[in-house]
Amino acid sequence: MPGTSQNSSLLSATDHFVDRHIGPGEDDIAAMLERIGYSSLDALIKDTVPASIFDDRPLDVPAARSEADMLAEARALAEENQLFRSFIGLGYHEAVVPPVIQRNILENPAWYTQYTPYQPEISQGRLEALLNFQTMITDLTGLEIANASLLDEGTAAAEAMSLAYSHSRGKRERFVVASDCHPQTLAILRTRAEPLGIKLDIQDVQEMSFGEDVFAVLVQYPCTHGLVHKDLEALTARAREHDVLSIFAADLLALTLLKSPGALGADIAVGTSQRFGVPMGFGGPHAAYFATRDAFKRKIPGRLVGVTRDVHGNLAMRLALQTREQHIRRDKATSNICTSQVLLAIMASMYGVYHGPEGLKAIARRVKRMSEVFARAIAEAGFALKQGDFFDTVCFECEGEERGALLERAKSKRFELREVDARHMSVTLDDAVTPALLHDLIEVVTQQPCELEALASAASDTFPEGLARTTAFLTHPIFNMYHAEHELLRYMYRLQQRDLSLTTSMIPLGSCTMKLNASAEMMPITLPGFASLHPFTHPDHARGYLRLTRQLEQMIAATTGLPGVSLQPNAGSQGEYAGLLTIRAYHQDKGQAHRNICLIPSSAHGTNPASAVMAGMKVVVVACDELGNVDVEDLRAKADQHKEQLAALMVTYPSTHGVFEEKIVEICELVHAAGGQIYMDGANMNAQVGVCRPGEFGVDVCHLNLHKTFCIPHGGGGPGVGPIAVAEHLKPYLPGHVVVPPYEAAEQGAVSAAPWGSAGILPISWMYMRLMGGAGLKRATQVAILNANYLARALGEHYKVLYTGVRGTVAHEFILDLRELTARTGITVVDIAKRLMDYGFHAPTMSWPVPGSLMIEPTESESKAELDRFIEAMVGIRQEIARIEDGTSDRDDNPLKHAPHTANVLTATEWTHPYTREEAAFPASWSRGAKFWPFVGRVDDVYGDRNLMCACPPMEEYED
Amino acid sequence: MPGTSQNSSLLSATDHFVDRHIGPGEDDIAAMLERIGYSSLDALIKDTVPASIFDDRPLDVPAARSEADMLAEARALAEENQLFRSFIGLGYHEAVVPPVIQRNILENPAWYTQYTPYQPEISQGRLEALLNFQTMITDLTGLEIANASLLDEGTAAAEAMSLAYSHSRGKRERFVVASDCHPQTLAILRTRAEPLGIKLDIQDVQEMSFGEDVFAVLVQYPCTHGLVHKDLEALTARAREHDVLSIFAADLLALTLLKSPGALGADIAVGTSQRFGVPMGFGGPHAAYFATRDAFKRKIPGRLVGVTRDVHGNLAMRLALQTREQHIRRDKATSNICTSQVLLAIMASMYGVYHGPEGLKAIARRVKRMSEVFARAIAEAGFALKQGDFFDTVCFECEGEERGALLERAKSKRFELREVDARHMSVTLDDAVTPALLHDLIEVVTQQPCELEALASAASDTFPEGLARTTAFLTHPIFNMYHAEHELLRYMYRLQQRDLSLTTSMIPLGSCTMKLNASAEMMPITLPGFASLHPFTHPDHARGYLRLTRQLEQMIAATTGLPGVSLQPNAGSQGEYAGLLTIRAYHQDKGQAHRNICLIPSSAHGTNPASAVMAGMKVVVVACDELGNVDVEDLRAKADQHKEQLAALMVTYPSTHGVFEEKIVEICELVHAAGGQIYMDGANMNAQVGVCRPGEFGVDVCHLNLHKTFCIPHGGGGPGVGPIAVAEHLKPYLPGHVVVPPYEAAEQGAVSAAPWGSAGILPISWMYMRLMGGAGLKRATQVAILNANYLARALGEHYKVLYTGVRGTVAHEFILDLRELTARTGITVVDIAKRLMDYGFHAPTMSWPVPGSLMIEPTESESKAELDRFIEAMVGIRQEIARIEDGTSDRDDNPLKHAPHTANVLTATEWTHPYTREEAAFPASWSRGAKFWPFVGRVDDVYGDRNLMCACPPMEEYED
Repeated sequence: MPGTSQNSSLLSATDHFVDRHIGPGEDDIAAMLERIGYSSLDALIKDTVPASIFDDRPLDVPAARSEADMLAEARALAEENQLFRSFIGLGYHEAVVPPVIQRNILENPAWYTQYTPYQPEISQGRLEALLNFQTMITDLTGLEIANASLLDEGTAAAEAMSLAYSHSRGKRERFVVASDCHPQTLAILRTRAEPLGIKLDIQDVQEMSFGEDVFAVLVQYPCTHGLVHKDLEALTARAREHDVLSIFAADLLALTLLKSPGALGADIAVGTSQRFGVPMGFGGPHAAYFATRDAFKRKIPGRLVGVTRDVHGNLAMRLALQTREQHIRRDKATSNICTSQVLLAIMASMYGVYHGPEGLKAIARRVKRMSEVFARAIAEAGFALKQGDFFDTVCFECEGEERGALLERAKSKRFELREVDARHMSVTLDDAVTPALLHDLIEVVTQQPCELEALASAASDTFPEGLARTTAFLTHPIFNMYHAEHELLRYMYRLQQRDLSLTTSMIPLGSCTMKLNASAEMMPITLPGFASLHPFTHPDHARGYLRLTRQLEQMIAATTGLPGVSLQPNAGSQGEYAGLLTIRAYHQDKGQAHRNICLIPSSAHGTNPASAVMAGMKVVVVACDELGNVDVEDLRAKADQHKEQLAALMVTYPSTHGVFEEKIVEICELVHAAGGQIYMDGANMNAQVGVCRPGEFGVDVCHLNLHKTFCIPHGGGGPGVGPIAVAEHLKPYLPGHVVVPPYEAAEQGAVSAAPWGSAGILPISWMYMRLMGGAGLKRATQVAILNANYLARALGEHYKVLYTGVRGTVAHEFILDLRELTARTGITVVDIAKRLMDYGFHAPTMSWPVPGSLMIEPTESESKAELDRFIEAMVGIRQEIARIEDGTSDRDDNPLKHAPHTANVLTATEWTHPYTREEAAFPASWSRGAKFWPFVGRVDDVYGDRNLMCACPPMEEYED
Repeated sequence: MPGTSQNSSLLSATDHFVDRHIGPGEDDIAAMLERIGYSSLDALIKDTVPASIFDDRPLDVPAARSEADMLAEARALAEENQLFRSFIGLGYHEAVVPPVIQRNILENPAWYTQYTPYQPEISQGRLEALLNFQTMITDLTGLEIANASLLDEGTAAAEAMSLAYSHSRGKRERFVVASDCHPQTLAILRTRAEPLGIKLDIQDVQEMSFGEDVFAVLVQYPCTHGLVHKDLEALTARAREHDVLSIFAADLLALTLLKSPGALGADIAVGTSQRFGVPMGFGGPHAAYFATRDAFKRKIPGRLVGVTRDVHGNLAMRLALQTREQHIRRDKATSNICTSQVLLAIMASMYGVYHGPEGLKAIARRVKRMSEVFARAIAEAGFALKQGDFFDTVCFECEGEERGALLERAKSKRFELREVDARHMSVTLDDAVTPALLHDLIEVVTQQPCELEALASAASDTFPEGLARTTAFLTHPIFNMYHAEHELLRYMYRLQQRDLSLTTSMIPLGSCTMKLNASAEMMPITLPGFASLHPFTHPDHARGYLRLTRQLEQMIAATTGLPGVSLQPNAGSQGEYAGLLTIRAYHQDKGQAHRNICLIPSSAHGTNPASAVMAGMKVVVVACDELGNVDVEDLRAKADQHKEQLAALMVTYPSTHGVFEEKIVEICELVHAAGGQIYMDGANMNAQVGVCRPGEFGVDVCHLNLHKTFCIPHGGGGPGVGPIAVAEHLKPYLPGHVVVPPYEAAEQGAVSAAPWGSAGILPISWMYMRLMGGAGLKRATQVAILNANYLARALGEHYKVLYTGVRGTVAHEFILDLRELTARTGITVVDIAKRLMDYGFHAPTMSWPVPGSLMIEPTESESKAELDRFIEAMVGIRQEIARIEDGTSDRDDNPLKHAPHTANVLTATEWTHPYTREEAAFPASWSRGAKFWPFVGRVDDVYGDRNLMCACPPMEEYED
């Protein structure tokens, strides 16, 4: 049909998603421009983006379509995927997602739009859910402490390797790995070991030996062939004798029946919680777990939720040991992980709460019994099995013509089995297998009638003594109270109402870009065609996904000006790491393997140096000038000094100070001249989309944070997705995959367990870009910059704005410098952050990248009305500070120092403060109509870190 | 696969929905039975259900299946429906449902599990949304007052007829109806007019004349052929001269461009709001509207939201003029409507808020332009159009072979056109039509290449002067503030947090059965295959629906023991009416047309007599004895007295007093002996499922409330579904339908606009019954009775339980009699109800069926823990009352009299009460962890009814 001509547009739909995504309407934009002294958005952008890089030619992104059209297109793509029944296993299982959890967590914006719980007073709901997760993991693994999740089992195993390596202080370099670990885990270990100089030593688990230089050993439990090795306790004992740490990659469901890793002497256990009610999603996102002994609690990677007290002595949770967080340790870090898979960890923990220990055991026993039934049936039919005890996976010999015929029969039934190696095949069963399906599967394999009843009654659903678990788990009441749907529903809603999310108000977090996550963007991810695909299904079954990922890659390429894209990295930090690996591989390939110096400005994200170290590089810090920009002279000097070894410069653009540095082209040129590559941290890509293209002003690699620029929701602290885009010359070095190579050409190692990483949520960004179209994406950038400048102008009248560009504008975010005010009044950024809670706002980014500052980013999705509310709150706070300055208010007893004010405090008979209850509770005119109640008072971090407790406390403590 | 034998059950799934639906676990049930002195559920039921009717043979309902299995089955059924693109119109349009509304209202349990807003202090969110709906309707119709919605356009037209008839005080009997009204509306009017003795007079709108006996006239605007008649203002003027009321059935979207009915002189306007973002759902549910002049505000049927003040003088909303509610007026009522389509009215109102006046006009103009384009194109191709102005519907001549060929071409494109009559066809366009689709449609009709561009630029998108609207609408700020998705999202969440729903706590409403609405039950209704079907699509396209409705009918038949089922009535009141019509038709058919006496016990629901009157019957009240049972001797006397005229007895079973009357068999027999039929009000069917079958103990007809017994959520006061089940001899008299007959045999009139009524939500009850299976349904009944007896026993130690069965048990609900306590202490049921809000509970049913009482129904879905919490609250309240009795507390200044306590009050500097703030705010130990905040203080009904205001007040008032 004739496309986009003038006349037919008379009939085009009148409702445009771009106007729903972007907060301010036309009139608002005009008023805001006037307020900051610009006549048009274009004029503002011209004054903000350096002329040397400005480029607003139309993006090669399809024209915007309506929500209804795009939902239909998404459904069609989902249906293009062929949902073969997967018996592949390999750590991915068809999960029974409880509908009450799907609908009220995964599909609920009050959960999925939450930010990372850095402000614990307004995050107690998800902190409790994460504490449940940690408790579940420590119980099942038999270890003392577990973190709040990692990205996937493969990278969790790599993190365990790193921890153990660091524990050996680098004095040992050999890592023994059982040959029957999952292949994708082995692949990630290979990728991660090489730059660090760790030697992988793949051994048969039955015949392991530990030389002097071995620092740790990893076994899969049960192994990738399904077997539960009998001698693991002896193995860990032997390891301990050699000062070798033992790491188990263990299946959580199997652990309900098997001796725990802790009981077997493991020091660390890792794995995935996917089968606890999280869709496979073609690979993720899922929450991996990491548990270890108490001795390693300060080395545990990722985030850790701990119990502490608030100022009133009430139980409160918060992220524990934050000073230990990896990104703060920069190039001293052993990991670049700074996120977790919160939303998925919460789903898994709610699955545990819903089923409880008895329910989980019953599920596991049925899986075990089905496997026994399957094994007996095929053994009777003459198949030779791998001998040993198994849980859910049966491995059998099948090769040549017999295999070909079996695969044909399976295909005709739309079953997918694993081809383990040339001789072996395997079948993995899960809770979603019905008796009818098992029956069909057996008949497909054996070609004989199956007497399921007889087989079932002869089969066992337990493990023999010595292997069987003898210890209780999930004994805490929380796992034994909420088994009826109403109970779980209400528990989830109680937690929900304790957490501030985007459903309440804007979350103006600098650098974290909490923009709208539109309902239409979220809807596709729970379509069965997207949610239920195994990551290692035959690519022919994933045509819908592959079409979607190709489109997304193309749109990312168009946006960045960098033609090669990998969607595999499943977090920004992973993207950084993957991007640097492409640079490393490029230099190696060019015979420049000695190039290992990575220049990083002092203002960089902490993950930058950590990633560089992981990629085998040495970090050299480049100074910044007093305006917050890279000190070009220092850069020039250092590039020159390290000319022979220069590998790369990592630069964030616009800078972490919220400014488009004018000299970016010069910076890129001088690094290139010294033989280095330019790595751009794409955290701030949302200020560039449609107005400049990194690939065209000198960038060779960048990663993007899809949960920032491209609308994947923060999920309370994850999932994230961190694809990388690279220039033509770097395309051959993009990540590969050992099971299903994502690109025909890719020969590189993998950085994530699944070929397309967190494929299950890629439809969100795809929807966003297609709904907006090229013009809409550009407009989003323009309004993001407008909103930031409008806020900066208004707040600049009351606070000091730290950095601006050469023409006085800021980019998409800006920094308020509170240091003088703090020195004068004692009011800190923390006090302001907590006081904002009384107003119903989430604090901006605190003390980063500048100590004693607030970094504010409104995003394009916030309306003028919401910005004005935020201004009113910040001005109100400034007035409260002014009353301290002029002596009207007490320096210690004022609404700022005691913020946030809880309902308990505000309704207590006793009120001793010089300010009123009303001032405390309802500081703004609009707050009575929309009060958000902080659930606890100001949290005591020091108490919690001194008295570390990272599992559910006794119930009585909740009731205090 | 071998089915349900012993052995294969070893492999059956371990998780059972029945254990999720039913609150108490095994241990809890044992403890509760012990508490009330029973050894088993069976023993309890035996003591509760009279032996004469007890029957627990297995129900002929398929065995329970898992949630995953049933979701797969639902998806398969949805896909069996063929989504032909409908151009049928007739008041049903493919709607563009904004995803943000679908996800956060329709799919959000915090909205759909709300109860009817009888307790305004904890219902301000939905009351505001409904006030927006009323404002939108009054604005668009140009009339002064609108209600909070009715069931469908057809019944709304019938309600208008009834109002007008009652206005004439029965002195006039003729109702003039334009012949070009929608046929389903005409059919309902026919059904409704006949028993009331109203004569329908179908006239051509161009040549209408009003005789002396005409009380009102109804016109369709635009008419069913799409035309906007030019002379309507003259018509209403003529009507007014004859004291004839004018009723318009008007299309809301058209009204954005057309002169309003009010401006044209209409007294009443009715219609549907479906096309405002509500899925067609194969017929419903949708919110119909009813607007009228101020003069009729006390006669307006259904519910009305009005603005009032709370005790603190704050703006507050509540249901207005409740004493006027139809069910209270019993046989004096002119309508039996006691519900509204709250959830759908809220969706439509949010659609209005989201688009605002400009957005709605733009949508309407595009529809208008597309119709013009279509009309021009087919006229150019030689089709003869009905001449005149039109909005969205183009009617053209097409008959014989030409029609056959066109229908074939349309079918090949999966298009569905309306066959208006033998000579005419029509096409109706809507906002979901894309230019590409319009292009294809034109080519299908004309068989010529379509130059859409040229056509579009030549087409008009406005109406000529005289027809065109000149007045503004939706000028209130609420319709002009929330057009960005974040803004609407937050507005909806602000409202949501003001309303107590089942996501917060149990809602123990006697007679209203607020049981679990499981997520798995809700998921299917938004599948496109169920949501997007036009009710008048060819039955071949609805095979999935028809399979589902047949299964549901069979399960209802099995449960009730009554083999004939009609799903058409879309509310319980409609079911009552439809059921009585079958009795009426049966008597008429047997030559007993004179049988018109309906016996109704004094304890009956108020809708019973109202429905009887509507069905042309005379009500004779039967006394109840002091135990609350039907006075059998009085019944015998009255049955005997009216022997010749006896049509029916209407009886609620178990009784509205919560008791299984022992003499039910005797009652049925003696009415049958007198020639009457037994109509059972099935409101309490949830106490009978699986333990007795009405059809087998003498009942001839019953209606069921699917939103009570069968889990359709209350939606904040609708939708409901009220199917009827009838004995074999009544099957020929089930409702029919003029457009698409639901049964081959049915020759009766319709009671609802769509053949299967609110078909779109029938998947909920179907899912529930299939998930539970026969055994599970029975167990639900048993535990519902257990829960009621457990509560009754515990509360009976502190309050007076009014009625019990002969062996001391209650059925599924029970009544606490507060009258003595009130007399002694001045504490009323209202005080207790409001104080329960401070505890976070919704009040039980107040003062019905016994004044000064509370009727409590816990349902089987509430856990022992939740029941114990409720007991703690009620005992706590009893202790507060005791402190008044013993003089410790003041009679007027106590936590009961001032309840509910709002955050404003509790955090005010001034606190003058003798009790503490803590006692007021946190009366129970658990309330600090889960505080629900009533948004306003006790609402002043009298003020509101004296100062009736039923539209959005100025914004300043919100801010007080």
